[in-house]
Amino acid sequence: MRVLIVYAHPEPTSFNAAMMREAVAVLSAAGHEVIVSDLHAMGFDPVSDRRNFSTVVDPGRLSQQTEEAHASAHNGYVPELQVEMDKLAWCDLLILQFPLWWLGLPAILKGWIDRVFALGRAYGGGRWFDRGVLANKRAMCSVTVGGPPELYSDSGWYGPVGPILFPIHRGILGFVGFSVIEPFVVHGPSRISQRDRAAYLARYRQRLAAIERAPVLANPRTADYEGFTLRSGMRPLPGATSVF
Amino acid sequence: MRVLIVYAHPEPTSFNAAMMREAVAVLSAAGHEVIVSDLHAMGFDPVSDRRNFSTVVDPGRLSQQTEEAHASAHNGYVPELQVEMDKLAWCDLLILQFPLWWLGLPAILKGWIDRVFALGRAYGGGRWFDRGVLANKRAMCSVTVGGPPELYSDSGWYGPVGPILFPIHRGILGFVGFSVIEPFVVHGPSRISQRDRAAYLARYRQRLAAIERAPVLANPRTADYEGFTLRSGMRPLPGATSVF
Repeated sequence: MRVLIVYAHPEPTSFNAAMMREAVAVLSAAGHEVIVSDLHAMGFDPVSDRRNFSTVVDPGRLSQQTEEAHASAHNGYVPELQVEMDKLAWCDLLILQFPLWWLGLPAILKGWIDRVFALGRAYGGGRWFDRGVLANKRAMCSVTVGGPPELYSDSGWYGPVGPILFPIHRGILGFVGFSVIEPFVVHGPSRISQRDRAAYLARYRQRLAAIERAPVLANPRTADYEGFTLRSGMRPLPGATSVF
Repeated sequence: MRVLIVYAHPEPTSFNAAMMREAVAVLSAAGHEVIVSDLHAMGFDPVSDRRNFSTVVDPGRLSQQTEEAHASAHNGYVPELQVEMDKLAWCDLLILQFPLWWLGLPAILKGWIDRVFALGRAYGGGRWFDRGVLANKRAMCSVTVGGPPELYSDSGWYGPVGPILFPIHRGILGFVGFSVIEPFVVHGPSRISQRDRAAYLARYRQRLAAIERAPVLANPRTADYEGFTLRSGMRPLPGATSVF
């Protein structure tokens, strides 16, 4: 397998960094090719606008999707985006390694999505979900969260992690065609013992060693839908379940 | 009222821009003070790391929360963040005006949250939700989404907008203490007629004119919780409901 790890943490001694290095080691040892986009080290710019393009369709008014469609057809992306788009097309497995900040992606990683998942490169032309441009690839979120498990329990402030990650799993990864592997979640790595951190890393090694058999989440099958909605009589997907 | 509009769209002729200008006009005419943070025009940098600080606690290892606690106590934020923190402290009403990109905040706005909502300024010391640092203020998302309403229906690909915005409403705005007003959602403004766009703006004017009576979403009341979880016997909040 070809594996792309997109890693978004500013501190090289963080637990996120340790997880990234563990994944590189385990997957490389298993014979896979692994590359890492270390967004902070790269100085990746997460702002999406005209800076994405070397081409211009309409200099008077920016329509991001119009410019993306044109740039996709005419090789019109700036080199730092084209490089990331090439990695995305190259990989069989995408791992997003990040700390959950404010129940979402850190801006530097959200901007990697906003800019790299462009119309004509990651989606478009009626290609989405199981017919997506990136179908036949798999993706997984490997996430650290600040709070303990009870915060994310049915009676906790935030409820389960599943619905919190739903916009990422369904709206980003699933939409472009990835089969989305169940997330690997670490709670409060800076607040637990060295021994507990080592136990998490051991569990992560197991997950990675069995990554080809890891369970995947439900995402829409286009055949079950007529346009944007389920055909009548089709059974609803298990989606984000009730948070409380 | 003092109103802060944080506006995140790169195109000045966009519908998001029209909504921002409408809000400035309506709220100013009603006698409120209004300021706008136009993130693209400001060239706001959304990456959160040591660049946030003029102070340093530990030069060898970056713990963002440790540095934030110190910077909050010692006036140690760089000027472009301090200005935004001052606006946040100043306002009675915060409006986030943005296009939903990939079911989430555009990176430039997510980074405004990541950097401005710092420990010691927006939360900390056991102050959260109704005891939050920003309690007694109100906040609202004013959002454009690309797809039509059926895409966000119970049988649509993504399900209702409520659960999609839940991480923002509960995990960002509610957590720091805001009373969170129901979002104002516009579907596919670039795909509808000029007349339908005008109708949306008219509805938005009505919402803004009655903003002090607008319904708010449920968020945890700290008295109902013991630590991170509900006290036994307490009734669960209506949270993110089932997406399908």
